[in-house]
Amino acid sequence: MEMFANNEVGTIQPIKEISEICKKYQVPLHTDAVQAVGKIPINVKDLGIDALSISSHKINGPKGVGALFIKKDLTVYPEILGGGQENGMRSGTENVASIVGFGKACEIAKEGLNENISHFKTLHSSILSKIVKEIPHVKLNGHPEKRIFNNIHLTFLGVNGEDLIIKLDEHGIAASTGSACSIHTQKASHVLKAMGFNHEQITGSLRISFGYMNTLDEVDQTVKVLKKVVAELRSVSPYKTKYNF
Amino acid sequence: MEMFANNEVGTIQPIKEISEICKKYQVPLHTDAVQAVGKIPINVKDLGIDALSISSHKINGPKGVGALFIKKDLTVYPEILGGGQENGMRSGTENVASIVGFGKACEIAKEGLNENISHFKTLHSSILSKIVKEIPHVKLNGHPEKRIFNNIHLTFLGVNGEDLIIKLDEHGIAASTGSACSIHTQKASHVLKAMGFNHEQITGSLRISFGYMNTLDEVDQTVKVLKKVVAELRSVSPYKTKYNF
Repeated sequence: MEMFANNEVGTIQPIKEISEICKKYQVPLHTDAVQAVGKIPINVKDLGIDALSISSHKINGPKGVGALFIKKDLTVYPEILGGGQENGMRSGTENVASIVGFGKACEIAKEGLNENISHFKTLHSSILSKIVKEIPHVKLNGHPEKRIFNNIHLTFLGVNGEDLIIKLDEHGIAASTGSACSIHTQKASHVLKAMGFNHEQITGSLRISFGYMNTLDEVDQTVKVLKKVVAELRSVSPYKTKYNF
Repeated sequence: MEMFANNEVGTIQPIKEISEICKKYQVPLHTDAVQAVGKIPINVKDLGIDALSISSHKINGPKGVGALFIKKDLTVYPEILGGGQENGMRSGTENVASIVGFGKACEIAKEGLNENISHFKTLHSSILSKIVKEIPHVKLNGHPEKRIFNNIHLTFLGVNGEDLIIKLDEHGIAASTGSACSIHTQKASHVLKAMGFNHEQITGSLRISFGYMNTLDEVDQTVKVLKKVVAELRSVSPYKTKYNF
């Protein structure tokens, strides 16, 4: 079980290298490619992946439906038993409409893959260069190159990320401090902790994600708002003196 | 774990009596009310139910969504772990659109409950009396009164149920030989076996279900077609001599 691309900082894991280690020790490799599919090309054969899961809503398909790729020679056991639907792998009345919608979303994502990657890269490089230019004391998190480009993860020192998303929301900009999952636990991100971030760095984190339809104009608008609200929050920050904001 | 209403023959289980036995032995009672909800009034308090599951598509809501009622003082553990959604009980990004659709379907089902029950009873009594009148060697399965009335389960002696549903389908009538789940296993119904049916009785079984929108005219049409196709199948049946068809 290895994440293909991290859901918080966007770093792509070295799946090929991991699969080679797995092969050496005869351990089957499952990868959670929910964040990666539609954002980078994935070839399960070339990468030596035995099992891979994807989620429809991450490629603009309907929510509540996903897929598990299983290599022919791999035996897996179901977690949900019952009526034996989907070859006994996941019992329960199939949600046909959503399955069809997911299939169509896959088709569209595949057709537009190169164009979307290029679009995401344009947005990513634009927002990064502008933020670095306009806002001081910002740190880019995750790998700068080996990453999915539909998100950017930053730390705004001396700012509380939760306050930041509220301020952004007031300006019609939706962002998050980490994964949607973490909202429920209110705990500090285990990903950022594992990356060696201290408390200040973790709480100052912001994740901005792009959709296929976001534009460069929206990037400009976001940076403009970010500059304003970060300055506002820093003017009342307990770290004011430390950084000489 | 006790089914509220059986998914094959429609019989309603004595949930109140079962819950009293459970209480006596301090065993929590979960009931699968998927077939029952929207077909009969259910009051978890009066019936002493600790946990109850329902499924959206059985009350004309979207597929792929369901609900689990859990009594406040009952502790249950999730089967699906992860992001902690739905109070940690079922992790995974919530399918909001379908949840809202399910809520609306519940509202409509509750509002129309009495009217629907009365409609189902009319259809049920009409199809039963007409079939008994028009077609010989037919047996009604399941309890005649303590049942949900949106389906009827019959055995047509000397006829193979699988052949029957194909013939009905040719006339635009959708029916089944048992639960949709059993299609995947191709095994004889464990329900009918437990009810003491022999092989001939099991293979001759047919389940006809009604939706809210079915009409008495459709009942008439169904009986007309049934009479015709049962006669056709019996004319070439291996049981021809036994019953003197």
